[in-house]
Amino acid sequence: MQQDINIQLSQLEEQIEALKTKVSILEKSRKDQLSIAIVSGDMDKILAAMIISLAAAAMDTHVKLFFSFWSLSALRDNKKKASGKDVISKMFGMMLPRGKNKLKLSKMNMTGIGPAMIKALMKKQGVLSIDQMFKEAAELGIEITICEMSMNLMGFKKEEMIDYPNIRYAGATTFVSDAGESSIQLFI
Amino acid sequence: MQQDINIQLSQLEEQIEALKTKVSILEKSRKDQLSIAIVSGDMDKILAAMIISLAAAAMDTHVKLFFSFWSLSALRDNKKKASGKDVISKMFGMMLPRGKNKLKLSKMNMTGIGPAMIKALMKKQGVLSIDQMFKEAAELGIEITICEMSMNLMGFKKEEMIDYPNIRYAGATTFVSDAGESSIQLFI
Amino acid sequence: MQQDINIQLSQLEEQIEALKTKVSILEKSRKDQLSIAIVSGDMDKILAAMIISLAAAAMDTHVKLFFSFWSLSALRDNKKKASGKDVISKMFGMMLPRGKNKLKLSKMNMTGIGPAMIKALMKKQGVLSIDQMFKEAAELGIEITICEMSMNLMGFKKEEMIDYPNIRYAGATTFVSDAGESSIQLFI
Repeated sequence: MQQDINIQLSQLEEQIEALKTKVSILEKSRKDQLSIAIVSGDMDKILAAMIISLAAAAMDTHVKLFFSFWSLSALRDNKKKASGKDVISKMFGMMLPRGKNKLKLSKMNMTGIGPAMIKALMKKQGVLSIDQMFKEAAELGIEITICEMSMNLMGFKKEEMIDYPNIRYAGATTFVSDAGESSIQLFI
Repeated sequence: MQQDINIQLSQLEEQIEALKTKVSILEKSRKDQLSIAIVSGDMDKILAAMIISLAAAAMDTHVKLFFSFWSLSALRDNKKKASGKDVISKMFGMMLPRGKNKLKLSKMNMTGIGPAMIKALMKKQGVLSIDQMFKEAAELGIEITICEMSMNLMGFKKEEMIDYPNIRYAGATTFVSDAGESSIQLFI
Repeated sequence: MQQDINIQLSQLEEQIEALKTKVSILEKSRKDQLSIAIVSGDMDKILAAMIISLAAAAMDTHVKLFFSFWSLSALRDNKKKASGKDVISKMFGMMLPRGKNKLKLSKMNMTGIGPAMIKALMKKQGVLSIDQMFKEAAELGIEITICEMSMNLMGFKKEEMIDYPNIRYAGATTFVSDAGESSIQLFI
């Protein structure tokens, strides 16, 4: 009898251990984390990405931003210059917006009148400027990763990117891996 | 012996209780829910958002739509007018589409020929019109939240928005919080 | 006493069974799977979708792509023709890009110079061409579903689509159902 009970007890224990492992895997696969792949470089899209990210970070959600393609324009530092670029890289450099304050709107850009209007309205309404948003993001520990392949394609160099704590350079695998364990993933 | 068994039993019970708590947290963090941040106001994007939402709602998935930036155009009621607007708000009002039936296509808009073609084709194929989609959405209990900050920025007022049951006005925090517990989250 | 212990044991067992069921539901609701609704037909967006998908598939994540609206252009086979089209379908056929190698950039398209530049740069940097990406996708078992409603709307026919293993034709319900059980879902 006693022996029988012991067998039953150890069987239950085994099942509990198996459940613990599964639950632990589930917990790791859905962290309280926001992961965004930002491909667009339009002012409205970058603003949306930053507003959502700051809201999440303020709620203690860990935020990981993966910048690629056109969005790299938002990370260019207007005051920095990179040397040793080939002709095509120079062309991209000239044609794409020089930093987050020079972005265009996806609609109603009107050669810069639209963005100027939005900036004026944001100021009037007491919304953070895009510069302040990046400062706040850095303070809240929002992580920025730059897509290395996009950077190479467009001929951007690390030395012309904004100062931001711990910028990482990585590939799509990093985004997929981060997104896979995040409770929220977006493509902007 | 008896005492030993009791200790083992209560230890197992404790472990089971701990697992229950964890599983309950996991369940709450992944409800059968679709959460979409709609930033685009293009006809094709709004259609995509509504078609996905209606499909989800028909499968008993709870749907929460967060309208911000350009997508607010889709929620304007063509017949309603708001008074007391300043110059910039009036400009936005004039330049942006007056409601979901006046939206432009992101491609092939051709000053309105594209949207008219799509509408004619939808009718021919027996697809719901965009008006019918919103009616259906209301009946299926799809929730609409309007981004208050976008509304203020663009100078839209509550009284010019469409009649829709229980429209909420809130900020990005609400989207992040809804998205964090949804099984599906999209940015459109 | 003995009886009392047996009751306790069977109660614990019941609770463990209930937990197992819940954990199993949670596991099924979050498979290691990437589900993307691709609505855009821009070259940059299709490239982004394929790069993320290939990265995921290389990490053994199951990938399900749902092509709708403009993205159907990417699945047209330039060498295939469909007969029996009405006037509007022929118009769409003429106006939309003929296949994945004819896509336009969302920015800096410059009547084809932009895409040609990107293709040249991709080749120079050793990035797979878009044709190679689709081949790789097929080999890695990435699933492609074509939105039947979009296809009917735009007048495309199955016989003009690319050769790809096991292309499915389905509706938004399929995307919602796939996305609901995926660990990563994106809208591109």
